Amino acid sequence: MTNPTEGISAVPDPEDGDYLREKCGVFGVYGHPDAAAFTALGLHALQHRGQEAAGIVSFDGHHFHSERRMGLVGDHFSKAAIIERLAGSAAIGHCRYATTGDTILRNVQPLYADLAGGGIAVCHNGNLTNALTLRRKLIRDGAICQSTSDTEIILHLVARSAGAHLVEKFIDALRQIEGAYSLVALSNKKLIGARDPLGIRPLVLGELDGTPILASETCALDIIGAKYVRDVENGEVVVISKDGIESHFPFSPRKPRPCIFEYIYFARPDSVVGGKSVYDVRKRMGQELATEQPAPSDVVVPVPDSGVPAAIGYSQASGIPFELGIIRNHYVGRTFIEPTQQIRALGVRLKHSVNRSQVAGKSVVLIDDSLVRGTTSARIVQMMREAGAREVHMRIASPPITHPDFYGIDTPERENLLAAKMTLEEMCGFIGADSLAFLSVDGIYRAMGHNRRDPAEPQYTDHCFTGDYPTPLTDVIAEERAQKLSLLAETG
Amino acid sequence: MTNPTEGISAVPDPEDGDYLREKCGVFGVYGHPDAAAFTALGLHALQHRGQEAAGIVSFDGHHFHSERRMGLVGDHFSKAAIIERLAGSAAIGHCRYATTGDTILRNVQPLYADLAGGGIAVCHNGNLTNALTLRRKLIRDGAICQSTSDTEIILHLVARSAGAHLVEKFIDALRQIEGAYSLVALSNKKLIGARDPLGIRPLVLGELDGTPILASETCALDIIGAKYVRDVENGEVVVISKDGIESHFPFSPRKPRPCIFEYIYFARPDSVVGGKSVYDVRKRMGQELATEQPAPSDVVVPVPDSGVPAAIGYSQASGIPFELGIIRNHYVGRTFIEPTQQIRALGVRLKHSVNRSQVAGKSVVLIDDSLVRGTTSARIVQMMREAGAREVHMRIASPPITHPDFYGIDTPERENLLAAKMTLEEMCGFIGADSLAFLSVDGIYRAMGHNRRDPAEPQYTDHCFTGDYPTPLTDVIAEERAQKLSLLAETG
Amino acid sequence: MTNPTEGISAVPDPEDGDYLREKCGVFGVYGHPDAAAFTALGLHALQHRGQEAAGIVSFDGHHFHSERRMGLVGDHFSKAAIIERLAGSAAIGHCRYATTGDTILRNVQPLYADLAGGGIAVCHNGNLTNALTLRRKLIRDGAICQSTSDTEIILHLVARSAGAHLVEKFIDALRQIEGAYSLVALSNKKLIGARDPLGIRPLVLGELDGTPILASETCALDIIGAKYVRDVENGEVVVISKDGIESHFPFSPRKPRPCIFEYIYFARPDSVVGGKSVYDVRKRMGQELATEQPAPSDVVVPVPDSGVPAAIGYSQASGIPFELGIIRNHYVGRTFIEPTQQIRALGVRLKHSVNRSQVAGKSVVLIDDSLVRGTTSARIVQMMREAGAREVHMRIASPPITHPDFYGIDTPERENLLAAKMTLEEMCGFIGADSLAFLSVDGIYRAMGHNRRDPAEPQYTDHCFTGDYPTPLTDVIAEERAQKLSLLAETG
Amino acid sequence: MTNPTEGISAVPDPEDGDYLREKCGVFGVYGHPDAAAFTALGLHALQHRGQEAAGIVSFDGHHFHSERRMGLVGDHFSKAAIIERLAGSAAIGHCRYATTGDTILRNVQPLYADLAGGGIAVCHNGNLTNALTLRRKLIRDGAICQSTSDTEIILHLVARSAGAHLVEKFIDALRQIEGAYSLVALSNKKLIGARDPLGIRPLVLGELDGTPILASETCALDIIGAKYVRDVENGEVVVISKDGIESHFPFSPRKPRPCIFEYIYFARPDSVVGGKSVYDVRKRMGQELATEQPAPSDVVVPVPDSGVPAAIGYSQASGIPFELGIIRNHYVGRTFIEPTQQIRALGVRLKHSVNRSQVAGKSVVLIDDSLVRGTTSARIVQMMREAGAREVHMRIASPPITHPDFYGIDTPERENLLAAKMTLEEMCGFIGADSLAFLSVDGIYRAMGHNRRDPAEPQYTDHCFTGDYPTPLTDVIAEERAQKLSLLAETG
Repeated sequence: MTNPTEGISAVPDPEDGDYLREKCGVFGVYGHPDAAAFTALGLHALQHRGQEAAGIVSFDGHHFHSERRMGLVGDHFSKAAIIERLAGSAAIGHCRYATTGDTILRNVQPLYADLAGGGIAVCHNGNLTNALTLRRKLIRDGAICQSTSDTEIILHLVARSAGAHLVEKFIDALRQIEGAYSLVALSNKKLIGARDPLGIRPLVLGELDGTPILASETCALDIIGAKYVRDVENGEVVVISKDGIESHFPFSPRKPRPCIFEYIYFARPDSVVGGKSVYDVRKRMGQELATEQPAPSDVVVPVPDSGVPAAIGYSQASGIPFELGIIRNHYVGRTFIEPTQQIRALGVRLKHSVNRSQVAGKSVVLIDDSLVRGTTSARIVQMMREAGAREVHMRIASPPITHPDFYGIDTPERENLLAAKMTLEEMCGFIGADSLAFLSVDGIYRAMGHNRRDPAEPQYTDHCFTGDYPTPLTDVIAEERAQKLSLLAETG
Repeated sequence: MTNPTEGISAVPDPEDGDYLREKCGVFGVYGHPDAAAFTALGLHALQHRGQEAAGIVSFDGHHFHSERRMGLVGDHFSKAAIIERLAGSAAIGHCRYATTGDTILRNVQPLYADLAGGGIAVCHNGNLTNALTLRRKLIRDGAICQSTSDTEIILHLVARSAGAHLVEKFIDALRQIEGAYSLVALSNKKLIGARDPLGIRPLVLGELDGTPILASETCALDIIGAKYVRDVENGEVVVISKDGIESHFPFSPRKPRPCIFEYIYFARPDSVVGGKSVYDVRKRMGQELATEQPAPSDVVVPVPDSGVPAAIGYSQASGIPFELGIIRNHYVGRTFIEPTQQIRALGVRLKHSVNRSQVAGKSVVLIDDSLVRGTTSARIVQMMREAGAREVHMRIASPPITHPDFYGIDTPERENLLAAKMTLEEMCGFIGADSLAFLSVDGIYRAMGHNRRDPAEPQYTDHCFTGDYPTPLTDVIAEERAQKLSLLAETG
Repeated sequence: MTNPTEGISAVPDPEDGDYLREKCGVFGVYGHPDAAAFTALGLHALQHRGQEAAGIVSFDGHHFHSERRMGLVGDHFSKAAIIERLAGSAAIGHCRYATTGDTILRNVQPLYADLAGGGIAVCHNGNLTNALTLRRKLIRDGAICQSTSDTEIILHLVARSAGAHLVEKFIDALRQIEGAYSLVALSNKKLIGARDPLGIRPLVLGELDGTPILASETCALDIIGAKYVRDVENGEVVVISKDGIESHFPFSPRKPRPCIFEYIYFARPDSVVGGKSVYDVRKRMGQELATEQPAPSDVVVPVPDSGVPAAIGYSQASGIPFELGIIRNHYVGRTFIEPTQQIRALGVRLKHSVNRSQVAGKSVVLIDDSLVRGTTSARIVQMMREAGAREVHMRIASPPITHPDFYGIDTPERENLLAAKMTLEEMCGFIGADSLAFLSVDGIYRAMGHNRRDPAEPQYTDHCFTGDYPTPLTDVIAEERAQKLSLLAETG
Repeated sequence: MTNPTEGISAVPDPEDGDYLREKCGVFGVYGHPDAAAFTALGLHALQHRGQEAAGIVSFDGHHFHSERRMGLVGDHFSKAAIIERLAGSAAIGHCRYATTGDTILRNVQPLYADLAGGGIAVCHNGNLTNALTLRRKLIRDGAICQSTSDTEIILHLVARSAGAHLVEKFIDALRQIEGAYSLVALSNKKLIGARDPLGIRPLVLGELDGTPILASETCALDIIGAKYVRDVENGEVVVISKDGIESHFPFSPRKPRPCIFEYIYFARPDSVVGGKSVYDVRKRMGQELATEQPAPSDVVVPVPDSGVPAAIGYSQASGIPFELGIIRNHYVGRTFIEPTQQIRALGVRLKHSVNRSQVAGKSVVLIDDSLVRGTTSARIVQMMREAGAREVHMRIASPPITHPDFYGIDTPERENLLAAKMTLEEMCGFIGADSLAFLSVDGIYRAMGHNRRDPAEPQYTDHCFTGDYPTPLTDVIAEERAQKLSLLAETG
């Protein structure tokens, strides 16, 4: 039932769509006595994918158990008492953050529902692009919905499916949803993993002494000493039960198109995504950047921590020494994740300080992984100057971000994306650097091991740089149409 | 979505029916700028009907606002900050307790759902006797249910109704439910009150300077200086909107049959229920008891606080002086409401002490309103003896309780009802008194102003004393049948 | 160390004297394996003496253990985990409330200090009238003081005493303090109880199967089934150790002069104070009141709960029936204890409601135990009138309070005492009654079993009614002198 | 007053000395309207010096205000409401951690005391080596002590001094204490900073638009844009008032001997301590290490984050590429600071993961700043091997730690220091590396810019490596003597 602590629209508010976006990590294990403890450790390793809340559901052969908490995984799920309550040899877990203030416990995953044949719990990483449209239809049909969760939509579709058994119902639901999803679900008999037809969000299959494991990234396998088996394929539904692992491919076959941002920013550097070391890719982006955009400087300084691998690559390719010219204060979180613009603004002063001895009197080339609003870069350049840097050259190890995301990344509205509204020169002026340059789109593809982007069949989901969205944006179109109608009505 | 913190059955557990019973207070106000503050005060006055949790939902013309908290009304809803968040001129509220440990915030009412035509919030006092049966059917039809709330069933029935507008949907839902209910619901246009066809649980209509108010008892009108208008009738649906108040009677007309236990125990003594002062009725029960069951004693001692009015009546009718022979410690709650048998057992030592000066060397007649498990009485009799009472005569101002309730009163299982398993003599031995006597069933009816109970058409719901349940017990029968089938299967 | 959470004066602020007043309950047990559990139960029985915070210190033969909490005893000390941490066969405890907002954990007793010979913990009920004067001297001598606790002064005096052993040091400290105190102290060898030279605050000695117990009131003995042995005498220091119980009388002998307010208001009705049943005394006050101040009425209505025994006495002496014309809401605390005038004002509406059926159309005589500011009485009279009472006569079972207390009772400043600033007629007008009358001072003494007050050697501490303070008010005089000097300086 | 929540010795326990050690950061500002906000920011920058608790005391010209909290500075002191309560233009603050479980709010600094002439608040970084001895004497003289704080001893000495005014009292107290201390104190007139005669712990004087500032490190000046003025000298007492800054040198002049560990581990790399950039010094330690202890490897891998600067130096001096072969999980704290050995053991798995792509098949030289117990190193070497490293060579950028600290660093007991009980070969075996080597003592001094350590007058406090303690260890000697006496008694 819906019991919001904050205002709920009497009529569903189309702007609530803003709430639906989230970025998360998922994990599942089937058939090990330490299922919940492994899940807790796995979520801890995936903590960079969502720090706001975490939850685990286990099944002990008779009952489901659920523990969900606001805060970091280690704040709660490091406690023996909580892990002991999560009895059973199968478990799934989720860590998340939301893009707005509306994060309350009832939105924390896994979500659970009783079905006629038994219960099911579901975790979701990604974002559906037709969730609002589906939600309106469900409510018209008498469903009672929580206001703001894609995952609940999936549960409703499963519950209402005429499918003969759970897997059929589950696939039936998948056929109705659009967008990006890596799902992990647990029933009283099965652990299910699923990836959307393009494989936009990551999901890997691992194994520990014969126990199958599903996780967003390989770093969650490493922490428990599990082996990487393979990536779940795009459009694949993996069903794990006591009878083993079976794969379903309910969609017509397509080439995969994983999100390029996992490589640039999201995944942990020690993870292997789609068979490629994330650290290696980032270093190569730095090397490509050094080749494409040299900067005659005394010292290569990374914006910590996200710019470090690219800066090492830049240093090695250019021969300019790598130095920690900016020290990060570890007692605050990651800028990109701070909930409000105001805290983001404050954030940099609280988070970074200049290591004056490496900067004063020098020409500095600053390396960062990406440029979003530009406010952080502007502050860092200013700090460099105040510390006495002679020149400050900013190099970004990815292309300009010109388009917002709708697949589970919390990007700002388009009007807040620096590269969507300014020329290169204007951006350089905005951040106050002596020069600014980005890696090219083809540079990114080269760093990934391709000759160049294939415009006919792009190898990655890269709409943030290109505007080329890989799925229809059903909700966005519906909203635009609704606004157009309402404008007509007003003028009419 | 269902996200229990404790074990959830993989397959719905029929024994969870135990969780569905609750005893609560409801309140609603429509069209006053202080709607939420009035609701908070009303719930405070109704606090005796449920101390475990409370919630208020308001509507401000555009949005619903919801605040729900574990604990007493005064713990949270006395704070200006919380009341201010509950903006709007319409509000409903609920206070509750649950009969088991499973009380968590998501069960706290009002429950809210988005419907196609807008939101609706519902509060419920009572218990449905076909909730499990309806729930099974809803889940088969693809509804996603919380496991343990009658009120959610009602919301699902409303949401799925084909009714043309909200009132029609609401009445459609009422036609499917059985048992006892006093409901208060709030939509974006209307405040609705409803009482079951027999009017088992109470609901009154009041008015403050033209603002209509709904409340479980008149004491909730008194606290805000509102006037009592009339009781909502059995089977009546009252719809309050800006156009005024209209009444619907969707059921075939029946005589009312309110629950006699409201008079004996539940309602506050200063409330007027069904036109009768509760205090007066209780005093008359004491007077009838003095006539039916005299006790040659030095002093009339009430078991505080529930036995006080009957003891005053007993003293006045018998001429034996009334004295506070037992002092209650106000810093602990009411015995009947303690959640576990173990705390109930401890409770009496912590809650009552003997006023030795009024008891030592005397023959005492102890007056209580009812006898349930008998453990409290046994301890009090023992305390009297330890304090030097010469004789202890126990008089109960209601008949022996032989049958459990299914309409919203938390009675123990039948095997724990003392009068269901012992003769009068055995009961007297169990509690250790020199004599024990109960008011007769007809004595109760006389205290209520009738000559006697009308066996053809009993004036009150009194199955706890008579076994005469006023509605079919659909869930109970379904469970018994299921158990019978399973026994057949085992033997087969 | 002093670590206030709120503003601390750079120079000690003489107005902080206001903070020093408190009203408390104390308890101690020596030589029983359940020492801490008994102390918790004892404090629960003494909860009416202070609801704001509670603490227990135990000694296990090697170490002291301490648990102190804000809130009711039952909120925290009912938990097995806390009691288990309080290991040992000796324990003392304290419940308290403060008269201002400055209640924080560091002020919660027992207070503990390491002395050269070992630790000592002290609990205090009462108020010193020279605490500020002593404190100034201690700070001049280099002591580091908490700002607002009498009890700390006592600890400093003990620590600085040149006495040869603990009891000598303790008595040395007592010789320096003035005012009212019932103390319970625990060292690594002894349990000590002490009462001031006049025995203003109560303290009794009990015994459970040979284990000695100290408590503020006998009700704390009753709850654990302990026997009352005797009152600790005025000016007596009781020292309990494994060698038995020894008594010291360090002061020149004086007649006892216990506080009359324990009988009128503070003590629990089932306690026996100074050999007299508190309930009996209160009933006799009601009987004396009926004789002195008859009221031709239909019904005697107590102001609950404090006025109930006097109302029973009034009813029995006058023959007018006793009825519960006011119902108290048990889910809020006691008016006299609410911390602010504003909440006190709100309090009555939240706490009491009229039982209309007993009041409408009748002449009512309202009985209360005392009249302080008069605001509660005014509201109750108004509620009676609104409920339709024909006449309202207020009778108070004690004399007018004209003087503030300095011995541990939280009385308002003199200008807020109704009887200090109004004539009887004005007071009657203020509360809006048809008539108002008080019990006389001699009436109180008669109810206590004396012919009258002995003006030469008054049997009780009764300055609130008479202005006859039994000890010098050293701090008050010092402050008045300081103000006078500062006025001289200003004019000079 | 002492009110421990855990066991307190009846007689002060000499082993409690273990509790007295702490490592902290201090900050003070005098004469700026944003004094408290600056202090909060300064403490945030000093967070690496103590993460367990923080506190600020301000003075507004009339009153002191105090806020102290468990947890990180940013958890509490980022809130406007808390900063607003800390009114005034002068403030001091402290962040701390304790070496044992006994961290409770009453131990959190600043500590405050009322003195005859007004209040004083004190913050302390360091550890006194005669605190227990002084404490025993104070208690013998009647002082009431908290059990476990050096800082309280200083306050008692100030309070008891016969000095004519505060500065005299303060210096009088300093003359009695031994060991290491950087103090910041605030009275109603003055801000005082003081460093022990050898200047073991750091303290700098800064300035922001004319406002003087005291801080443990320059990074706390940088965060608020303040300028570094100079280090407070060893043995200097700086007194800041509205009349300006004056310096006192109450001790006979000595050469400074700052703690070498500030450079190796404690200070933040962007701080300038004693005129030297900490980052530069660490890099030079890595360079010296590369020269002294080369390792023929494919890749230089730092143990993050503490080993990073030395690894960069090692890489630059050796020409072996620097790579992030270990990824740190930022969502857990710093190993050295975890409170128990057990969590320390778990810690590494939760905190570090191998970046397999940089390690598999390679010969790795691991660089860390120091080696304490060796358990972290052993786990990291094992992780390297499991990830497929061909060879693992461990290089430590400081000498073997053979002696515990008594000046404010939380070192384990000597028997837990790996280098105190094993040969180099045994240590190498213990951690499982192919080779292990340390920087020499003279190497450290070279990195600091000296030719070598001057054995006659060592330039730094370096007893952890050399056993050369710079002050008498009065408490340690007293304890050893007490144990010897007790052995004599046993044998006698």
